[in-house]
Amino acid sequence: MRYDIAIIGTGPAGLSAAVNAKIRNKSFILIGDENYSEKLALAPHVENYLGLPGKSGKELGEAFSAHLKEMDIEITATRVKQVIPMGTFFGIQIQEGMIEASALVLATGIVTKKNLPGEDDYLGSGVGYCATCDGPLYRNKTVMLVGEFPEAEEDVTFMAELAEKVYYVPLYEGAKTAAELGAAASREDAASRIEVVDAKPLRVEGTEGNAFTRRANALVVQTAAGDERRIDADGIFFLKKMIPAASLVPGLAMDEEDPSAIKVKRDMSTSIPGVFACGDCTGRPYQYMKAAGEGLIAGQAAVSYVTKLAEK
Amino acid sequence: MRYDIAIIGTGPAGLSAAVNAKIRNKSFILIGDENYSEKLALAPHVENYLGLPGKSGKELGEAFSAHLKEMDIEITATRVKQVIPMGTFFGIQIQEGMIEASALVLATGIVTKKNLPGEDDYLGSGVGYCATCDGPLYRNKTVMLVGEFPEAEEDVTFMAELAEKVYYVPLYEGAKTAAELGAAASREDAASRIEVVDAKPLRVEGTEGNAFTRRANALVVQTAAGDERRIDADGIFFLKKMIPAASLVPGLAMDEEDPSAIKVKRDMSTSIPGVFACGDCTGRPYQYMKAAGEGLIAGQAAVSYVTKLAEK
Repeated sequence: MRYDIAIIGTGPAGLSAAVNAKIRNKSFILIGDENYSEKLALAPHVENYLGLPGKSGKELGEAFSAHLKEMDIEITATRVKQVIPMGTFFGIQIQEGMIEASALVLATGIVTKKNLPGEDDYLGSGVGYCATCDGPLYRNKTVMLVGEFPEAEEDVTFMAELAEKVYYVPLYEGAKTAAELGAAASREDAASRIEVVDAKPLRVEGTEGNAFTRRANALVVQTAAGDERRIDADGIFFLKKMIPAASLVPGLAMDEEDPSAIKVKRDMSTSIPGVFACGDCTGRPYQYMKAAGEGLIAGQAAVSYVTKLAEK
Repeated sequence: MRYDIAIIGTGPAGLSAAVNAKIRNKSFILIGDENYSEKLALAPHVENYLGLPGKSGKELGEAFSAHLKEMDIEITATRVKQVIPMGTFFGIQIQEGMIEASALVLATGIVTKKNLPGEDDYLGSGVGYCATCDGPLYRNKTVMLVGEFPEAEEDVTFMAELAEKVYYVPLYEGAKTAAELGAAASREDAASRIEVVDAKPLRVEGTEGNAFTRRANALVVQTAAGDERRIDADGIFFLKKMIPAASLVPGLAMDEEDPSAIKVKRDMSTSIPGVFACGDCTGRPYQYMKAAGEGLIAGQAAVSYVTKLAEK
């Protein structure tokens, strides 16, 4: 099945886009955290959401939940790993597999965490965010995975079935051991190929060259003992809670004045036909009301795009 | 007293701008209808205002009222007749006189009523929207006023003190007679100079020429009996409930693709420094949530503008 619209992100922007897709009777999937954004949950007091004065982020979230419930809108709680433009539709790699949509609404928020030194330089040249997508390229090679959340362990197990050697750097408490990770794999000697590294990533290193010739070849980490350790690897995957929209959708143009913001027109269309963006990922001000307003525009613009596509 | 910000319009865009000006501790005046927009009052059911699902326009209005009350924001119930850019501030002609503001937020909505044939051609050349502003130009001449609301009668009385002859076309029920209008004037023979015309305006006529040389010289009306009548006048004032923003602020650039919309950047700034716009007057979609989102952006951008101005 191909959805009319895939909406990525469940902050006010994504929810508002979903409400408008629903009203216009389009099929859509709303992908993100069931508890909305972490930012919303933590907001102590929002004074400027017109019509809902002086609410906590939690209370605003409850008002949004009531709205979704009344309109029978459900959130698909998963992570998007990569978006692949396919001409007249988009392939969207999620945790559970590949889905398709005719139009895309990006409401991915702003990623405040900075990338590692070297990460951007080698993105697509040894550095990636989707082991499921690019993993097969590393058959019988050495790969490194850095995971921000426990579900990343599935990718470690998957890679241990293919690769010669798998280093795993978990950035959370309570990660599985190499034995446990290997036990879930279809290959018998998987556990012996996995090394779990208790360390903090410092930088990506690689060969010199231009964008086409250079390649990442190592991750430098700080070990629990405080020492620097250079771990050679043919490929390095960062499995992040939030992937910047520009990394999620290859070729998406960013704003000239604010390189962290997706460049949008007044109708929230981006540089890629069929891709719309709204909320914090389009730039300042980072505010719920702004996000919800843009979500409406993006949602309705995506509806128009899909309708015109169907008429062709 | 000079306000930091004057906000014109009390639909969701203007209210949202006011909430943000208040939060940032700027002095401001919020000018418009105390009952918000007519459009809001008439909306039967709004499904896509995120967080307030399935409300009538009236209920949304009540939610907005509660917000204004909680933040101690008051509406100044009057009409803006003209805005005059004065370099580092704006002169704003309202019913009661002239006020000043360092920045301007236009939230004037969309004027769906079409102008008369000829009205735009002769605007500023015999046609005007502010008798208080331009009235003195017509001393001892013949003027015509077309009034959409009873308060326009004050302008008729005022003009009868100056002009040789005043025609008044009221577009509402229960207008005063010439005798009543004249009785309020300081000039004794004012009543004899006034003629109240029960008719429907059809078109503005005038001389040929370019923008600088042509002048309006008559209004053609349809009389109550159904006949056309040409009434010669040196000046014609249309006293409207809603004046299109472009007529309110001379020189404001409009959108290339939608000439009824004010051209805005992503921060809701317009072609005139210090003037910001939001809501329906910036173009489609004409939706409350979009308007409220833009109101936040415009309000915060006006705050930044005023703050920078003060630092100079």
